[in-house]
Amino acid sequence: MYKFDETPVMPKGFSCASRNCGIKEEGDDLALFYSEKTAEAAAVFTRNLVPGAPVIAGREIIKKSKLQAVVVNSRVSNVGTGDEGVKRAYRMSAAAAKELNCNEDEVIMSSTGVIAVPLPVEKIESGLVGMKADLCSDPLIGASGIMTTDTYAKAISISCDDYTLTIVGKGSGMIEPNMATMLVYVFTDAAVSAKDLDTVLRVGVNKSFNMLSVDTDTSTSDTVIAMANGLSEKEVDLDEFQQRFSAACIRMTEMLARDGEGATKLLKILVEEAIDEKQAKIYARAMVNSPLIKTMAHGCDPNIGRMLMALGKCFDNDLDVAKLELIVNGVTVFADSVKTNFDEKALRQSIDSDEVVFQVKLGLGSGEATAYGCDLTHGYVDENAAYYSS
Amino acid sequence: MYKFDETPVMPKGFSCASRNCGIKEEGDDLALFYSEKTAEAAAVFTRNLVPGAPVIAGREIIKKSKLQAVVVNSRVSNVGTGDEGVKRAYRMSAAAAKELNCNEDEVIMSSTGVIAVPLPVEKIESGLVGMKADLCSDPLIGASGIMTTDTYAKAISISCDDYTLTIVGKGSGMIEPNMATMLVYVFTDAAVSAKDLDTVLRVGVNKSFNMLSVDTDTSTSDTVIAMANGLSEKEVDLDEFQQRFSAACIRMTEMLARDGEGATKLLKILVEEAIDEKQAKIYARAMVNSPLIKTMAHGCDPNIGRMLMALGKCFDNDLDVAKLELIVNGVTVFADSVKTNFDEKALRQSIDSDEVVFQVKLGLGSGEATAYGCDLTHGYVDENAAYYSS
Repeated sequence: MYKFDETPVMPKGFSCASRNCGIKEEGDDLALFYSEKTAEAAAVFTRNLVPGAPVIAGREIIKKSKLQAVVVNSRVSNVGTGDEGVKRAYRMSAAAAKELNCNEDEVIMSSTGVIAVPLPVEKIESGLVGMKADLCSDPLIGASGIMTTDTYAKAISISCDDYTLTIVGKGSGMIEPNMATMLVYVFTDAAVSAKDLDTVLRVGVNKSFNMLSVDTDTSTSDTVIAMANGLSEKEVDLDEFQQRFSAACIRMTEMLARDGEGATKLLKILVEEAIDEKQAKIYARAMVNSPLIKTMAHGCDPNIGRMLMALGKCFDNDLDVAKLELIVNGVTVFADSVKTNFDEKALRQSIDSDEVVFQVKLGLGSGEATAYGCDLTHGYVDENAAYYSS
Repeated sequence: MYKFDETPVMPKGFSCASRNCGIKEEGDDLALFYSEKTAEAAAVFTRNLVPGAPVIAGREIIKKSKLQAVVVNSRVSNVGTGDEGVKRAYRMSAAAAKELNCNEDEVIMSSTGVIAVPLPVEKIESGLVGMKADLCSDPLIGASGIMTTDTYAKAISISCDDYTLTIVGKGSGMIEPNMATMLVYVFTDAAVSAKDLDTVLRVGVNKSFNMLSVDTDTSTSDTVIAMANGLSEKEVDLDEFQQRFSAACIRMTEMLARDGEGATKLLKILVEEAIDEKQAKIYARAMVNSPLIKTMAHGCDPNIGRMLMALGKCFDNDLDVAKLELIVNGVTVFADSVKTNFDEKALRQSIDSDEVVFQVKLGLGSGEATAYGCDLTHGYVDENAAYYSS
């Protein structure tokens, strides 16, 4: 629907930098995102009951709804580190504020990597010194510093006459490989109040990142932060902004799903005609998270039994098999309570691509939802069974 | 606690047989379990919203609380087959009743295998002819006819002076490999009323089979049936019977978990000191189902981060990290909010066995629960990605 910029750019007034500060043996492990003007800000964090120190600190910082910078390290997540971990998180933002000459309480921090290991904050403090000079307008540079097991740096932007919207993200693959942590930063020079930005962020996240799953394992560090610095100085139509914002979030969600641990293909589950959106989400998530759906997609097998099973295991929901229609990559495979006579060979060939779309028509109402995920492969087992946690 | 018989036997008056009736190219695909006297009976079935035809029919048959036989086929599950499927399920029990010369409405049926494929009921009808002559007292014979991807036939018995209790089960591995279907039949010559048997069955199943998961995918055919024919003619102490019944169910659960698709080890998750049993079950299930816990067990890695994550993702539950203690194979790995100084090499060696016990002490109350599962391996991906559904 929207045309994304061929080469992603940072919005007016935003810049970023990445470097190696010695936490990783090689590759960038420290990133800085900066707005020359304090921005209106909003954030959503993981619902995990064991949130990381940066999430605990971040929830306090975002209360002011103002941010000028984000500082992120990879390799060590600063989770399960007690009170000392929270102190080190604040030392991280203080060091970034000093380097950028801005207010400490307008800098937010993220950390991603192994859990229950002390944050090497001295390396981060030293690494930040002089980093302001590296700031540039290429969001892929910032994206490289937050990567863990992602196979490539992820940034997209969408520009219109009035403003630019840029998203930098890191994968919901495992952390080195430890845990599906997703870090996403949305920057815009559009003029939006913190209150409106918060609403737009939550609507966008609910339709995109919150419908993404690589392996059902919710990280202790998931964070999405949005910053709007208003430097475009144009009035924004909020509905149009919401649509553009959501479209960009969905695009980034698809990128994260495709690059999930060991993934070879994107799975999209479209549930339609549910009683309501809540029910549609339950069914879509059950499908996208089922190991049997994930392996059948990997094996290019249009297995009706597994689709029926995955829907049916959503206990306490309405399901009328007689009204149910199952469609895989546009081919109806189940209707009127029985398997249809589809061309199985042709459908197998169609599933043997980098994207599989499962469409579920429930025939019950007008609720709908889409979930995003990936296939389950040897690669997932390899990365996560071979991992050393310390 | 209880000593199981070295060689399993059927209780007094019970017998079984298996044969190949032509549904599978080779190997037994039809099994018959028979009591010479009509037994008091109880059953629990899958909660899947797309139950198989035998589950739909079985729910009607069990209302009478009387059974004299169970007939089971493997290879085709008779699920997603519409009204015709239900008719064929009843044809199956009618044919068994005719062969055994008992009442049609006292014979229950199960089917396990591929979904959305018509049941070849003529083969079953022909196969049953003359099968009464094959009935024998070895429960492993009956167990062989209900196998799908199980690697061995599963039957156990526990005998005391007063009665024998025998369980025949098939794996919660995939069906050929399609779906984690569990079929379990419990036979006893103890004298127990149908009402008491139903209570004992539900208590036993809740602590055993309902706490088992290979891959979170609930089958459309799961069935546990209990039959008590009273031929021991001794009074039963119901509490003692319950304990013995539950112990046998737990033993069979562990056998099914160990033989899960591609599994190399049994995972036991003991959650203690929860607010209540309900909460303990939520945490235990989250741990046993987490792909990251399953792969770390496979990789022999005592990864504290993944344990914290799996507990923490149980949103809307109480969790106090300061009170939390995590113990792996008897070694405390997390306490007082931080990782302990345990001998990692020794613990890795201890995890490198066929059983891993994760113990979670929540410090919140006296609720407890145990969940049973297995590791996630290449074998699981291979069996389920390579599968052809038709």
